[in-house]
Amino acid sequence: MRVTGSDYKTIWLDQDGRGVRVIDQTLLPHRFETHALATMNDAARAIAQMIVRGAPLIGVTGAYGLAIAAGEDASDANIEAARAALMATRPTAVNLRWALDRVSALLLAAPVSERRALAYAEALRIAEEDVACCEAIGTHGAAVIADMAARSPGKPVNILTHCNAGWLCAVDWGTALAPVYKAARAGVALHVYVDETRPRNQGASLTAFELLNEGIPHTVIADNAGGHLMQHGLVDLVIVGSDRTTRAGDVCNKIGTYLKALAAHENGVPFYVALPGSTIDWRIGDGVREIPIEQRSPREVTHISGQASNGDIVEVRLTPRGSPALNFGFDVTPARFVSGLVTERGVCAASESGLARLYPEMRG
Amino acid sequence: MRVTGSDYKTIWLDQDGRGVRVIDQTLLPHRFETHALATMNDAARAIAQMIVRGAPLIGVTGAYGLAIAAGEDASDANIEAARAALMATRPTAVNLRWALDRVSALLLAAPVSERRALAYAEALRIAEEDVACCEAIGTHGAAVIADMAARSPGKPVNILTHCNAGWLCAVDWGTALAPVYKAARAGVALHVYVDETRPRNQGASLTAFELLNEGIPHTVIADNAGGHLMQHGLVDLVIVGSDRTTRAGDVCNKIGTYLKALAAHENGVPFYVALPGSTIDWRIGDGVREIPIEQRSPREVTHISGQASNGDIVEVRLTPRGSPALNFGFDVTPARFVSGLVTERGVCAASESGLARLYPEMRG
Repeated sequence: MRVTGSDYKTIWLDQDGRGVRVIDQTLLPHRFETHALATMNDAARAIAQMIVRGAPLIGVTGAYGLAIAAGEDASDANIEAARAALMATRPTAVNLRWALDRVSALLLAAPVSERRALAYAEALRIAEEDVACCEAIGTHGAAVIADMAARSPGKPVNILTHCNAGWLCAVDWGTALAPVYKAARAGVALHVYVDETRPRNQGASLTAFELLNEGIPHTVIADNAGGHLMQHGLVDLVIVGSDRTTRAGDVCNKIGTYLKALAAHENGVPFYVALPGSTIDWRIGDGVREIPIEQRSPREVTHISGQASNGDIVEVRLTPRGSPALNFGFDVTPARFVSGLVTERGVCAASESGLARLYPEMRG
Repeated sequence: MRVTGSDYKTIWLDQDGRGVRVIDQTLLPHRFETHALATMNDAARAIAQMIVRGAPLIGVTGAYGLAIAAGEDASDANIEAARAALMATRPTAVNLRWALDRVSALLLAAPVSERRALAYAEALRIAEEDVACCEAIGTHGAAVIADMAARSPGKPVNILTHCNAGWLCAVDWGTALAPVYKAARAGVALHVYVDETRPRNQGASLTAFELLNEGIPHTVIADNAGGHLMQHGLVDLVIVGSDRTTRAGDVCNKIGTYLKALAAHENGVPFYVALPGSTIDWRIGDGVREIPIEQRSPREVTHISGQASNGDIVEVRLTPRGSPALNFGFDVTPARFVSGLVTERGVCAASESGLARLYPEMRG
């Protein structure tokens, strides 16, 4: 997608055919810089430090991390060690495990001498599949937005989103924002309310950056504001992404998603979740009981970074010294609050039967 | 209440008997400084710039502002002008109007020569009444907390609060936190989850500062986290304040309160609102339709202040230049989501009949 008029993806192979480049998302929206991943450790650090973030992009970065590791030392032991090191960076991310399992299984079954080439090819394939997958999510979701637009001709469709599930979280297009981009390019008038998404503010920084660069009308709001907007009829549709969805349709996504789902339910606002099939965890049903929720550093709550008036990016303390903080990264929205799941195969009900219809091969 | 071991109120008469001193709440929690109000304009600015904030404290500051104005020029015209200037600072605050109406009516009915003395005496009376009122709210609310504690002996009661409705928003004790202070002083084991309360972060700064200085166990959380905590049984009770409550029990409070009320309702967590009778607006019933919601500067969303590592208080930009923001200051929680109203006269149902029982003289 576009950054100041040029087309970018979030991850691409460097000209040497070994290293990988990514957009340093920790500097956004204030500075646009790319960041080199030359070693497996660079890849692991980029995931852990959220230089790259978002389920699909984490998966692709993990796959490239294994490819770089196979280039360093293609032995079984090193591939197993790299797989473990990469997996440990973000334990909640099912998509990361999926990508690492796929690449490492392929490599461990192949002769050592062929592993390096196989790994890079497989990482590229995962990236290309992700682009196609996100674009398909966009097409299916855009139909939902177009339906909504047809009900109130002449009025823009007001969409609320939480966190960043745009192209910066994938390789291109994104998940929750892909329908927005597809609908906008098809000429549907729309406007997006962007939850800032404390504590890491991915909405205020990344989603706003994406929409601004794509020329999509949008407004940043505090996470506290969505309930009021829905209560007053100012939101037609909520679309969010998902880090992990159970086979029953319970949705694990950025902390605060559940509160917006409750407000949408209470006020009759359709609440859609856009996700690639790779983030469905078919092993579990009850998301509230079974999905472990990552606790991140309290410092993300007690401190925040932004751009000072002199242009420097500065971290400031928000809380009194001595006050503890707690930082759950995600929450789970039970399926009964979800109007529909938008996948690369189409839109379905957030239920075991809905998902089984789209993914019959996964039926237990 | 205590600040580093010394007892303070939020507003007091200076030694010259004319000027008034307040705590500069814009510097908290990083610096504790007092601020002089020497003129009526100083008082209006202190309210508008949120050097003082919170319904009861705004009312008392308005009353002292009228007293200072009467000392400057006690004519009808000047008192009317001061009343209008003070009222314009925070149009949503019903308590401010109540205090200004009370003092100005008294003054306009009195001889010009007596107005100055009458005004200071009335402002002091309003302040003293507020302390007594908040302490009574504390006593009634502490009984609710003690009941909760008795149900799970040996376990601390986990209370979630939003924004700051502690002593810093009143003259002493506060509203939502008064029950916490009273219960803690009576030996009830408790712990408070403090919503940071974007965009102005009054929870992370003021509520955390109060609880830290009073020695009350507490944890600061992002506004997004409360739903997850309630879903997992980590909150026993929610207590918030109110800027305006309708005669039917609809509660206008800091933006985001409504989302927490929905989560409490969904998860069977009691949701109490603590308020002085002076903030009840008996003229209106339907809060969602009838209470005008103040829109504040978008800059409160796009920027935030905190303390840099060198100790300076710095404002940083969070959003990309060019992304607009919207900043509703309050929302309305319909009475059906409120378990009870804690007033200076006792606890009642959030309903017309509940309030009429406690305030029979207001029955229409």
